[in-house]
Amino acid sequence: MAKQKPRTLSGFMELLPAPQTQFERMAELLRRSYALYGFTPLDTPIIEASEVLLAKAGGETEKQIYRFSKGDSDLSLRFDLTVPLAKYVALHYADLSFPFRRFQIGKVYRGERAQRGRFREFYQADIDVIGDGKLDIVNEAEIPAIIYQTFTTLGLNRFQIRVNNRKILNGFYAMLGLSDRAGDVMRTVDKLPKIGAGKVRDMLTGEEIGLTGGQADEILKFISITGSNNDVLSALEEYKGRHELFDQGLDELNTVVKYLSAFGVPGEYFAVDLTIARGLDYYTGTVYETFMTSHPEIGSICSGGRYDNLSEYYTDKQLPGVGISIGLTRLFYVLEEQGCLNDDMITAPADVLVLPMTEDLSPAIALATQLRAAGIRTQLYTEQKKFKQKMSYADKLGVPYILLLGEDEITQGKASLKDMRSGEQELLDTGEIIDRVRLSLANSGAQRPIREKEE
Amino acid sequence: MAKQKPRTLSGFMELLPAPQTQFERMAELLRRSYALYGFTPLDTPIIEASEVLLAKAGGETEKQIYRFSKGDSDLSLRFDLTVPLAKYVALHYADLSFPFRRFQIGKVYRGERAQRGRFREFYQADIDVIGDGKLDIVNEAEIPAIIYQTFTTLGLNRFQIRVNNRKILNGFYAMLGLSDRAGDVMRTVDKLPKIGAGKVRDMLTGEEIGLTGGQADEILKFISITGSNNDVLSALEEYKGRHELFDQGLDELNTVVKYLSAFGVPGEYFAVDLTIARGLDYYTGTVYETFMTSHPEIGSICSGGRYDNLSEYYTDKQLPGVGISIGLTRLFYVLEEQGCLNDDMITAPADVLVLPMTEDLSPAIALATQLRAAGIRTQLYTEQKKFKQKMSYADKLGVPYILLLGEDEITQGKASLKDMRSGEQELLDTGEIIDRVRLSLANSGAQRPIREKEE
Repeated sequence: MAKQKPRTLSGFMELLPAPQTQFERMAELLRRSYALYGFTPLDTPIIEASEVLLAKAGGETEKQIYRFSKGDSDLSLRFDLTVPLAKYVALHYADLSFPFRRFQIGKVYRGERAQRGRFREFYQADIDVIGDGKLDIVNEAEIPAIIYQTFTTLGLNRFQIRVNNRKILNGFYAMLGLSDRAGDVMRTVDKLPKIGAGKVRDMLTGEEIGLTGGQADEILKFISITGSNNDVLSALEEYKGRHELFDQGLDELNTVVKYLSAFGVPGEYFAVDLTIARGLDYYTGTVYETFMTSHPEIGSICSGGRYDNLSEYYTDKQLPGVGISIGLTRLFYVLEEQGCLNDDMITAPADVLVLPMTEDLSPAIALATQLRAAGIRTQLYTEQKKFKQKMSYADKLGVPYILLLGEDEITQGKASLKDMRSGEQELLDTGEIIDRVRLSLANSGAQRPIREKEE
Repeated sequence: MAKQKPRTLSGFMELLPAPQTQFERMAELLRRSYALYGFTPLDTPIIEASEVLLAKAGGETEKQIYRFSKGDSDLSLRFDLTVPLAKYVALHYADLSFPFRRFQIGKVYRGERAQRGRFREFYQADIDVIGDGKLDIVNEAEIPAIIYQTFTTLGLNRFQIRVNNRKILNGFYAMLGLSDRAGDVMRTVDKLPKIGAGKVRDMLTGEEIGLTGGQADEILKFISITGSNNDVLSALEEYKGRHELFDQGLDELNTVVKYLSAFGVPGEYFAVDLTIARGLDYYTGTVYETFMTSHPEIGSICSGGRYDNLSEYYTDKQLPGVGISIGLTRLFYVLEEQGCLNDDMITAPADVLVLPMTEDLSPAIALATQLRAAGIRTQLYTEQKKFKQKMSYADKLGVPYILLLGEDEITQGKASLKDMRSGEQELLDTGEIIDRVRLSLANSGAQRPIREKEE
């Protein structure tokens, strides 16, 4: 028979068992982290009607989308988890309680140009809090705590959450009478690290944008406000009283910073950063980006912010919210590339591999059944192979323990437990085996999927 | 702005938060169950190249498939998890250790005619054990244990695993010299419960199939072998020695039955059933179906069997295996229809809802942070609403506890914990609150998502 060459599409991540287990562990820790903060899990279809999914989209999104017909239906694969959430909340509005807090970890699809580290199918891990009409600022203050909790749970320690408030930016540009040109100005100011203050000033005062020298200087002064959170907040106080939106944004930012320590976020993990702007139209309040301090070149690994109108394309209801998103597939890829996955993590499918040495397998099976009843992941290995091959199988899987059961052991009501890491082997009864394995697993239970290299 | 009517495609399950939480709990318990038996989690792309995915398929599958072009690529959405597994094992053969035991819970797509209880996007939950060249029969004997463990963990108690062996069927038809007509015969025999033995005999001896009266009688006698497992196995002994394949199948069936109790499967959950055949070409050994004894009309809720050649369309390597599949979305739908979901299960996104009664929220936030550090799912409610509205929110979510924190409580270093089920309210310090909530959650921790109605 002619064979079809097996292959996986480029841009689609397909992992071997060990890294897949690390990925699953990351997803599980994200679920647990989010659940601690009172978010409910949600799952929406991957396929939606194109007219629903593309109610807002245009430009890049439209080009990248997987869109096709089936029968009479014009269908599309979701390209993020936000639009399906906007649809969900509008559709099920009457059945939901607000604030509605949901997390969703799911695959999304973008037909981007295939290149290293770019994925066409990838997981996003999103949380959002949606209010009905209003949403208290404390929800925005809580987000850094969730980011901090989530990444430390994964094992990441060297990261910083950078926060700004869009009202401060928009208010500041309004003070200068530049509301209509704020977009151009921000895009230019973004080039500061690359081209320097002089060239930015030239561009700002150039024909295209056309600011006065005074305006350009004001902007460069504002954007150079850095230092500790208190330094930045004090410097911002000096702009107070000149524009209502600015004042409101500063109040909000002060509230976010005020509650940081009550939320358990150590100061060094957090920085007010006036250069964080994020998309122009969508976000309206606090905005967040998160950087690995050892790998800033990776860019933000968790971003989001406050928005005023989640479902405006589906309903007249005002549904403000705040949310963040982690691009889990890309994060995993980057961590692996940087050698930041914990290679000591147990990724074996079983804690104990039982190797029966007798023809009648009943005692070995009964032992495996007891271990499983005690919550120990147990695999029976019954293939007819040489002992050496069986040990090599155990080695390759990385199982922490093997259990040998021959006539002698059965007669004594015991089995030989071999610790594959230490090489030690002991004859133990079932209760002792269970205690020993449980204790060892409890000790390794705190294993984090991420382990940063020493600097 | 003109609004787009929000809608979800027909045939796509989209659940509200409470049932979604029950669904997630089912999926989590499946993952845990499978992991206990040494299966590793796998995740493969939802989109594959059409030529890869359709290497084997034809007929119904081809019609139902979601197939489309993107750029130059001919793409399809997976319609099961078996074909992607066959591709995965062939593609990554050199990197895998055999037997390779994997589970996968994922969405698959079939564009079936939309009707109640039929889904176009649905979850399958599969396990498979793949051997390299050979695979020991004990793997087939272990499957009923996994099915038993899985469903009892979910909370289902009234079900039966029915098992047969394709070698027994094929061997029996070979004895009668009917190997070439076995398919027609089996399809006719399947009608027995509906049309009765007389009509089946007429059809078997009719022009189309053309058996002799003797052959038809032999078949009717064989198929009417029922009773306890021992009854059936004894009756089958009488056919022994007439065909090698039959004898081998009977040996295998005896092995499966022999190890049942060592595997911890109570006898009443298991039945040898000679009418279980499953697809004609794919399965070659033990086959399984699982029925809810109170709802046999639902059909099998977990099926599978032994096959000889998983990846024959991709590789010359002989890769035999055994696997089972649960149609999770359909199972969930059916359980909900039958009122078999446990409506006492806590589906609230939080265990504790903190209601601060002071302007400065720091003490309430700090308390929530302590609860979260203790592993308690905690939501802060800080919206400016009347007390009654806050209580109604707590009620609707179904949170088990609320925590009231006013000036008095703060002064005393305590908070008022209200048990929403009993209505009792007590002033407690943080340690007491944590102990109380943990104890209550531990007691409800054994909650199963399925609860069958009393008969």
